[in-house]
Amino acid sequence: MTEKNTEKHTIVCLVENHFGVLARVSGLISARGFNIESLTVSKTEDETLSRMTIVVEGDAATLEQVKRQLNRLVDVVEIWELRAGEFIDRELLLARVKADDKKREDLKNVAAKFGAKISDGDDSVIVEATGNRSSLDGLLEELRPFGITKLARTGRVALERA
Amino acid sequence: MTEKNTEKHTIVCLVENHFGVLARVSGLISARGFNIESLTVSKTEDETLSRMTIVVEGDAATLEQVKRQLNRLVDVVEIWELRAGEFIDRELLLARVKADDKKREDLKNVAAKFGAKISDGDDSVIVEATGNRSSLDGLLEELRPFGITKLARTGRVALERA
Repeated sequence: MTEKNTEKHTIVCLVENHFGVLARVSGLISARGFNIESLTVSKTEDETLSRMTIVVEGDAATLEQVKRQLNRLVDVVEIWELRAGEFIDRELLLARVKADDKKREDLKNVAAKFGAKISDGDDSVIVEATGNRSSLDGLLEELRPFGITKLARTGRVALERA
Repeated sequence: MTEKNTEKHTIVCLVENHFGVLARVSGLISARGFNIESLTVSKTEDETLSRMTIVVEGDAATLEQVKRQLNRLVDVVEIWELRAGEFIDRELLLARVKADDKKREDLKNVAAKFGAKISDGDDSVIVEATGNRSSLDGLLEELRPFGITKLARTGRVALERA
């Protein structure tokens, strides 16, 4: 909860697919007072390994401690931080947005501007969009006046540039 | 690890944004022997709440117990299971794929077939794609012969149909 020098950090954690590894990793991060802004975890091309992308907010010194402790967990194969400018990041969102016939055209224009897809419905549609965080935040800003009744975001996934 | 009647279930869990809630939720699921296939968590339009989409594999009876126990956690506001056919699901993947000049055209054709974007590079590219699980599995199948050197997937995010 400390406000001193908190920044957002993107950590990638390669872990073995064992029961409870997600609970141990997220527990350790929370125990150090880090707020987990988003977390994605999914299998990799190696079926025995999963890749977690974790966005946390906190100061750099504490983050170093957390990384050292995570490295000591038996199921953690590797952990590294992605540095600004050295990776591409994307997330995906699904939103149900109100749009009667009168508003439908306006909504289509907003979707087109952000390269988002919309699926037709009666008085609401599902908007599907991908982009980096700020792009999706911009889209949501423009969708809000229509009325967002449901929202699911994946959180960030990221890959190092060459 | 039991193999009896295991199925994949998609659970949505609406939780308060408190420290440690992710660790408690994932810990409880793992403690019951459920394998978490993917998990995404991100904030909703209500900043005090996060929405988790969890894909687990296990038998239906144990899942009912897990849902009851999760409901008892103070930070869990609501939990429900999405039934096949009643939701749309998407995930996003980023993959670094080998592709020298000779292979580049073939790779572009595969990407186009799946509506995936590719970013140019020297001897490898980043492929960015969204779709449901089987669609992305199909894409990976066709990318594998090129050589996938890195892969990050968000895991499933899902929204109820109207």
